[in-house]
Amino acid sequence: MGKVICAGLGPGDPDLMSVKSDRTIRGADHVAFFRKKGRAGQARTIVKGMLRDDVTEYAMEYPVTTEIHFDSIEYRQLLSAFYDDWAARLESVAADHDVVVLCEGDPFFYGSFMHLHTRLQGRVEVEVLPAIPGMVGCWNALGEPFTWGDDVMTVLMATLPQADLIDHMRRADALVIMKTGRNLPRVRAALEATGRLDAAWLVEKGTMPDQRIAKLSDVDVDDCPYFAIVLVHGQGRRPEAAE
Amino acid sequence: MGKVICAGLGPGDPDLMSVKSDRTIRGADHVAFFRKKGRAGQARTIVKGMLRDDVTEYAMEYPVTTEIHFDSIEYRQLLSAFYDDWAARLESVAADHDVVVLCEGDPFFYGSFMHLHTRLQGRVEVEVLPAIPGMVGCWNALGEPFTWGDDVMTVLMATLPQADLIDHMRRADALVIMKTGRNLPRVRAALEATGRLDAAWLVEKGTMPDQRIAKLSDVDVDDCPYFAIVLVHGQGRRPEAAE
Repeated sequence: MGKVICAGLGPGDPDLMSVKSDRTIRGADHVAFFRKKGRAGQARTIVKGMLRDDVTEYAMEYPVTTEIHFDSIEYRQLLSAFYDDWAARLESVAADHDVVVLCEGDPFFYGSFMHLHTRLQGRVEVEVLPAIPGMVGCWNALGEPFTWGDDVMTVLMATLPQADLIDHMRRADALVIMKTGRNLPRVRAALEATGRLDAAWLVEKGTMPDQRIAKLSDVDVDDCPYFAIVLVHGQGRRPEAAE
Repeated sequence: MGKVICAGLGPGDPDLMSVKSDRTIRGADHVAFFRKKGRAGQARTIVKGMLRDDVTEYAMEYPVTTEIHFDSIEYRQLLSAFYDDWAARLESVAADHDVVVLCEGDPFFYGSFMHLHTRLQGRVEVEVLPAIPGMVGCWNALGEPFTWGDDVMTVLMATLPQADLIDHMRRADALVIMKTGRNLPRVRAALEATGRLDAAWLVEKGTMPDQRIAKLSDVDVDDCPYFAIVLVHGQGRRPEAAE
């Protein structure tokens, strides 16, 4: 009787995954990972050179990408069936062996694994290995403390209504904005409306070899991938106070 | 010519530090860490058994703990002189050797290292190794996805004014509240005022052997150490939507 182990991979540099994830992935007989059809997949790319020669791989390919709008009922149903199917397949593999599911960032922080985690409850043992979230890799790439003192930090999805974005941006000290891509013009406008555009950075593939860092005000709004993260540093409400 | 390397230790379980921090710490000739006077120090405890036999250790002991109020000018001056002194000493060590500074959690996320980082700019090369923040270890200990979909996550210090706590608690989906300790009664009241107390967890030493998890509503308010973290899970605004 095996279990399903979700191994968080961290922000992208394989040297930044945990000792435990590293050991688990190198020893795995069965490895599964999400990817878009026709792509190598970011998670699989991160572990390149780490897997055993005799490993069995399971590429969990998302059923649709851009053909159907992601907010439509049809899309949700397709995706739900996709997760149902893979939950059953992983449960079946885990009947005999441990199976390691690779997940970028930290699995419990906006991770796709949650859709499998929910479905697998009560059916098979599930273990989750935490990891450095992508945003931590991105602020590390900027080389300055991100929050200190009594800073309030808020993480926002760029898909939120503009009024919500502005409301949160006004109140928080440090800001992390994810799911940027096509939503970047709205993020930019909201940051401008709250006087924070000049302090905002765009980080793409933080900690990876092709990492890209730019001041958001210098970025062409058409030139922003979905996974790029926008960051605004906190200023430390009480920088000299001790913990 | 050496450099100052701040190695993030992660949430506490040594198996959860990054491959890079692990390797750096095991190979270090000179290791520095913060601690309270008369204590072993949490950072030093985490790396127990990992250091070389011939390592040179530098215990950076905070000059005061409870004798003087941490908001007083005197306290700030004492602490500032303490960081000035250690910045100079680390710079001097780094003239000949690399020196590794151990930091719990992620160094750039509310980490004490920022006080040295600021002072060392332009004087010596500084490298920071990111790590899993303490809060990530704590939500991992709870075994459920912490944020998904379009959840807004806000990190709050319990030292903030009550009105600010309430204001943020109303607006965010997922909540992380740090620096609890004596501030716990105010945190509890703010969560109650916003209808979120029943969903709140207190996690102490997440991922460590003596980890403690409790529903916040069951916790005696006098029984909360400063480093315990309060967590409220997000509910996922769009749980079936793909990334």
